[in-house]
Amino acid sequence: MKGRVEIRIAGEGGQGVILAGIILAEAAAVWQGLNATQSQSYGPESRGGASRAEVIIDEEEIDYPRVRQPHVLLALSQEALDKYLPDVRDGGVVIVDQDRVVPPACPRRRLIEAPITRLAREKLGRAIVANMVALGVLARVSGVVTLEALRSAVAHRAPSGTEEVNLRALELGYHAPVREVSD
Amino acid sequence: MKGRVEIRIAGEGGQGVILAGIILAEAAAVWQGLNATQSQSYGPESRGGASRAEVIIDEEEIDYPRVRQPHVLLALSQEALDKYLPDVRDGGVVIVDQDRVVPPACPRRRLIEAPITRLAREKLGRAIVANMVALGVLARVSGVVTLEALRSAVAHRAPSGTEEVNLRALELGYHAPVREVSD
Repeated sequence: MKGRVEIRIAGEGGQGVILAGIILAEAAAVWQGLNATQSQSYGPESRGGASRAEVIIDEEEIDYPRVRQPHVLLALSQEALDKYLPDVRDGGVVIVDQDRVVPPACPRRRLIEAPITRLAREKLGRAIVANMVALGVLARVSGVVTLEALRSAVAHRAPSGTEEVNLRALELGYHAPVREVSD
Repeated sequence: MKGRVEIRIAGEGGQGVILAGIILAEAAAVWQGLNATQSQSYGPESRGGASRAEVIIDEEEIDYPRVRQPHVLLALSQEALDKYLPDVRDGGVVIVDQDRVVPPACPRRRLIEAPITRLAREKLGRAIVANMVALGVLARVSGVVTLEALRSAVAHRAPSGTEEVNLRALELGYHAPVREVSD
């Protein structure tokens, strides 16, 4: 990884967006020796149930901790995709859950579809760990963190008793069939 | 509450510092109609096991999401207090767990001591909810959020199955005996 990478994770309340952001940031910083910030902003729109987490990863110190133009957008709901797709920079990566989202045209970005929630439900019987499946996809597709660093962060940060299913979800995502959609 | 308020919560890994920050920010924004940001920064020092969350609350939109000079510092370990006390602005509030911390001289700030972990352990049998006791103390002493808003945020955000004990911990903290120490 070279230079500053801005990542936005967005979805609905209850999808574990914030925990995904925390684990991604800890993986990068605590387990991979980089600097990271992780943040949420809440305003009037927060009352609608949308949820958004931002992570910045850099080899250097991070002066400005807010995402302006994401290199990577992970969108777990249609609303999140529609709202944040325009911010993604040219050449950026957009990852969506193919069963929850109908992707619009996405010129100048890489659009990656994966069966995120379906894998969590069918392979693990727990749709709630779709957030960890999504992080596995993100690591594989974007290369911003290693699977090993994510595993360490999950083992230390996942709620007690849920470590094992979350680790399995990560692996599932990392090895998931993904489809790159071109315009 | 008037204007921007900067809050730093700091302690050791495993004390629930980040969850406390998330709940405080959601209480302010989602349940009390204010704007809030919540963030963590991780760098080389993260590897030592210290944990720090920052929350900014404002009636206006928040342009700069990083804490510079906290109005409120909640310090749950001696290391956190020693490290962050110098940043607290004049007239600010410093809240400490009286059984874990020996407070140094604290000129020009209000120093508040409360038996945070002891209440969690003795009244609820769960030291792990000391973070919610601490939030109750913070709400009462600082007035930055209402107990009602905190209750709503805890009910929606605490890990499933732990809502009741976390709500009781909040109440305990809100009504805890506190001691204001003057130089």
